[in-house]
Amino acid sequence: MNLIVYLAGQIHSDWRAEVEEKAVEKKLPLTFVAPQTNHDRSDDIGDTVLGEQPGNLYRDDAASSINNLRTQVLLQKSDVVIALFGEQYKQWNTAMDASTAISLNKPTIIVRPKSLIHPLKELSNKANVTVETLDQAIDVLNYIYE
Amino acid sequence: MNLIVYLAGQIHSDWRAEVEEKAVEKKLPLTFVAPQTNHDRSDDIGDTVLGEQPGNLYRDDAASSINNLRTQVLLQKSDVVIALFGEQYKQWNTAMDASTAISLNKPTIIVRPKSLIHPLKELSNKANVTVETLDQAIDVLNYIYE
Amino acid sequence: MNLIVYLAGQIHSDWRAEVEEKAVEKKLPLTFVAPQTNHDRSDDIGDTVLGEQPGNLYRDDAASSINNLRTQVLLQKSDVVIALFGEQYKQWNTAMDASTAISLNKPTIIVRPKSLIHPLKELSNKANVTVETLDQAIDVLNYIYE
Amino acid sequence: MNLIVYLAGQIHSDWRAEVEEKAVEKKLPLTFVAPQTNHDRSDDIGDTVLGEQPGNLYRDDAASSINNLRTQVLLQKSDVVIALFGEQYKQWNTAMDASTAISLNKPTIIVRPKSLIHPLKELSNKANVTVETLDQAIDVLNYIYE
Amino acid sequence: MNLIVYLAGQIHSDWRAEVEEKAVEKKLPLTFVAPQTNHDRSDDIGDTVLGEQPGNLYRDDAASSINNLRTQVLLQKSDVVIALFGEQYKQWNTAMDASTAISLNKPTIIVRPKSLIHPLKELSNKANVTVETLDQAIDVLNYIYE
Amino acid sequence: MNLIVYLAGQIHSDWRAEVEEKAVEKKLPLTFVAPQTNHDRSDDIGDTVLGEQPGNLYRDDAASSINNLRTQVLLQKSDVVIALFGEQYKQWNTAMDASTAISLNKPTIIVRPKSLIHPLKELSNKANVTVETLDQAIDVLNYIYE
Amino acid sequence: MNLIVYLAGQIHSDWRAEVEEKAVEKKLPLTFVAPQTNHDRSDDIGDTVLGEQPGNLYRDDAASSINNLRTQVLLQKSDVVIALFGEQYKQWNTAMDASTAISLNKPTIIVRPKSLIHPLKELSNKANVTVETLDQAIDVLNYIYE
Amino acid sequence: MNLIVYLAGQIHSDWRAEVEEKAVEKKLPLTFVAPQTNHDRSDDIGDTVLGEQPGNLYRDDAASSINNLRTQVLLQKSDVVIALFGEQYKQWNTAMDASTAISLNKPTIIVRPKSLIHPLKELSNKANVTVETLDQAIDVLNYIYE
Repeated sequence: MNLIVYLAGQIHSDWRAEVEEKAVEKKLPLTFVAPQTNHDRSDDIGDTVLGEQPGNLYRDDAASSINNLRTQVLLQKSDVVIALFGEQYKQWNTAMDASTAISLNKPTIIVRPKSLIHPLKELSNKANVTVETLDQAIDVLNYIYE
Repeated sequence: MNLIVYLAGQIHSDWRAEVEEKAVEKKLPLTFVAPQTNHDRSDDIGDTVLGEQPGNLYRDDAASSINNLRTQVLLQKSDVVIALFGEQYKQWNTAMDASTAISLNKPTIIVRPKSLIHPLKELSNKANVTVETLDQAIDVLNYIYE
Repeated sequence: MNLIVYLAGQIHSDWRAEVEEKAVEKKLPLTFVAPQTNHDRSDDIGDTVLGEQPGNLYRDDAASSINNLRTQVLLQKSDVVIALFGEQYKQWNTAMDASTAISLNKPTIIVRPKSLIHPLKELSNKANVTVETLDQAIDVLNYIYE
Repeated sequence: MNLIVYLAGQIHSDWRAEVEEKAVEKKLPLTFVAPQTNHDRSDDIGDTVLGEQPGNLYRDDAASSINNLRTQVLLQKSDVVIALFGEQYKQWNTAMDASTAISLNKPTIIVRPKSLIHPLKELSNKANVTVETLDQAIDVLNYIYE
Repeated sequence: MNLIVYLAGQIHSDWRAEVEEKAVEKKLPLTFVAPQTNHDRSDDIGDTVLGEQPGNLYRDDAASSINNLRTQVLLQKSDVVIALFGEQYKQWNTAMDASTAISLNKPTIIVRPKSLIHPLKELSNKANVTVETLDQAIDVLNYIYE
Repeated sequence: MNLIVYLAGQIHSDWRAEVEEKAVEKKLPLTFVAPQTNHDRSDDIGDTVLGEQPGNLYRDDAASSINNLRTQVLLQKSDVVIALFGEQYKQWNTAMDASTAISLNKPTIIVRPKSLIHPLKELSNKANVTVETLDQAIDVLNYIYE
Repeated sequence: MNLIVYLAGQIHSDWRAEVEEKAVEKKLPLTFVAPQTNHDRSDDIGDTVLGEQPGNLYRDDAASSINNLRTQVLLQKSDVVIALFGEQYKQWNTAMDASTAISLNKPTIIVRPKSLIHPLKELSNKANVTVETLDQAIDVLNYIYE
Repeated sequence: MNLIVYLAGQIHSDWRAEVEEKAVEKKLPLTFVAPQTNHDRSDDIGDTVLGEQPGNLYRDDAASSINNLRTQVLLQKSDVVIALFGEQYKQWNTAMDASTAISLNKPTIIVRPKSLIHPLKELSNKANVTVETLDQAIDVLNYIYE
């Protein structure tokens, strides 16, 4: 049984490649989908498609409309969602993707360091499982196939 | 027509009283509901009800389970949601409440300063309206009754 | 049994007052809700609340976000929807409101002149009832109470 | 990941072939579905299947019932919807298809010329993305696969 | 706790008055709603509102569109549905109303004579409770209040 | 695009074979599913699986529980439903299957002779299309693929 | 804001009266609803309404159909569910009511002694809050009103 | 037509292997999914993934969060659910899985010995079919393919 896994979270490091590698090592039949991970491309996509916008608010709104369409398509196709939180960045769209997934009854795993226990407590409580490392998240996915 | 408005956001200042006052001034038939705004009470509620928990993770999980029950009851009763973001705090449960509201088709207004345009762009794009001040949010509610 | 009726359609004439009058005459326990019917107010509301926007596209998008919030609140409260089409104007948000109502399982009455039979045929077929005059629409509402 | 794209809009020109060509050029794994694009066939289908109807209203209602069945089957199978608006024709079933898609949480792209910004503002605001050309719409679909 | 009860079934006898009387006797806080019970009015309503239709099929379709709107409004307001079947008449819209109620998760009671056990077996199995007399149906409603 | 079509209706004649043949002739990529068409098997299935039941009511309830499970599995897998009504038999589970399909937003075609226009008028009005012959129903399915 | 609370659990002791008393003491604006708490009445209701059934299976099925109708009406009206588990009895319909409530997004509190932690662990994990005493459950309800 | 069948129930005996064998014998195109059937693994999975927990309640909650994620993934993929009850064990998560399946409109078969008729009566009444042996459950699945 193949499963599609949406990887929500920051796009400043290549943590998704790490997840995919671990899944390959364990021979899990998973397909991973994600937001646009090229950060500049993600920020520019509105202006790139629609032309230069009159200021940052409009530029960001244009980009986010296309990013949201992409996420909506891929999240709806997903069977499981992993949402990674770290100590840097605001990560409100990670919180948004995780909450949307939970509202859509998508089984959801949150990955966050111990330092974020307190500010993420309500979201962690609503998610299915909260872990601290990507290895643990993969262990949870692996458990589905045992 | 009475409407119930859920006020999502931080609980470190008394911004909700300000909203309620403005609504009274404009004689809008609104009932406001909100998370527990006594910060210590909110953090302690798990230990208070369930007894002392073995460490911060468990203490936070216990508290959040009761906070989430409260929010679920009140959010489901609401007709409109206002979610306030500011420059301080992580505010991931504000993002969670706003996203949940949007997923439940609750009309949602985000209030955030200009400085947060970029990190909130995807969530703003999914909300109905994004404004910068509480006065503007009240103006939007007022418009429903014109 | 009181019912709430959303009156979708153009805001250039006072047809809603006519509907309300007829309902009062027949002593029907109906509450009518509607979009903003002050046309300038409706077009200006974005700039009024959010400040002047940089061009028509942005001005219209700002206004429509607030108009859509209003409609979402009121349409969700409604038990029945009447959507009036006439020979003037594009009326795409009338079509949008009627389609949204139908998708939400709100019983929907379309009012349109004979001249619009052909272009409205798919929407008419999905609505519950299509009539030609406001009197006929009121007759349908009256029939609920017989 | 293959996606099915419903192409809503007028059936008087061959714009759909243009979209499909562009998708082939970019090697996007998309399947396109659409309403009946043979205009006479679309208008006649009621009489063709059910026999001659007693007047235009009945003829149009018969045709639209079969057109609506077709659209309902194909729209429910779709992952994304593109809705094209132009300066000619009433296009109320384009608005109906786009609104239905949005209500069903289908990611939706509207394509419309600048001249239609104002009358389409509420629908544009509810869609995920609004662009001006088919090339831009294809760029948005392409972005899902990057 | 007041409950609204939709009484689906034939409109050739005054069985609904009997139900209401029994409810009054037992002082149950129930409001009863029903389809149009004036049979001629029900059959004529399409022509009455829309004008004379060109033949029976069109006359019946026009009438049923208004009857269906009425039923949709009232069924959606209901907390419980009673569907009465008897040995006369086709009663397919009774079956339709009961099935729709079950699909909408409305608790549903079927009343039918022993002679109809076999042809109603699949529908009875999907309903909550099947009884043979109106008294038994009222007993079931009464049980909610004990 | 393959579609699954549920064929609701009586199981006393082999009309389903006729439908399948016509679909093969037209090379339509359709898979047909249906209730148990062996009438004795359908009536006996409760006793066969669960052992002899104490009387007809219990025998019929046991059989219908297994028939309903079968229908629920297959109807949920279907993309389109055809419901055939004829002049014989009560056909209340045909009405039940058609109504359930409509409530689940399954595009639905009713086939009935002219003589049943009046008693089926409300159900016909809720279905997408009503025709008089199986050939017409196949024409409608064929139209999806044009 | 009045809330309706469904009290799921065994009907062999008068624990519900205790809950209501505590709510009155705290002046909480709560209405409590519950299954039939007269145990004999609950077991006999099928035979009482439908006549004597041919054996225990049929007697139990008849009773449960009426008990389930009652629960469905009252659970759908509820805003919060409390499900009490104790060391005696099988309590599978308590588990059923709690699971149904959770599936319907009703905020749910489980009350169970420490001795049942292990067998109830999956259900506790899906509920919003799990406590050990009725006082704690009331404390959680009280927290909604602070 | 392949179907996926979720096998809910205790994990202390190898009854699932028996079901799968019987399905192979009958050449039914079924894929079976199930909870973790290694009992120690199921109980330990929380500590194994997350590290040792501070006491049984926390250990059980951690394990159940991962077990629930697994069940949610697999149950959502299923077309039919079989829930086995026996005389040993509390089996509240069997009741939970069956109730969740019913709430999600998954056709559900309960298998239970005669001795459990009374305590399972409400759940049996809500399930599609209740049988006494695994052979009977397989007979019901087989019937779908006849």
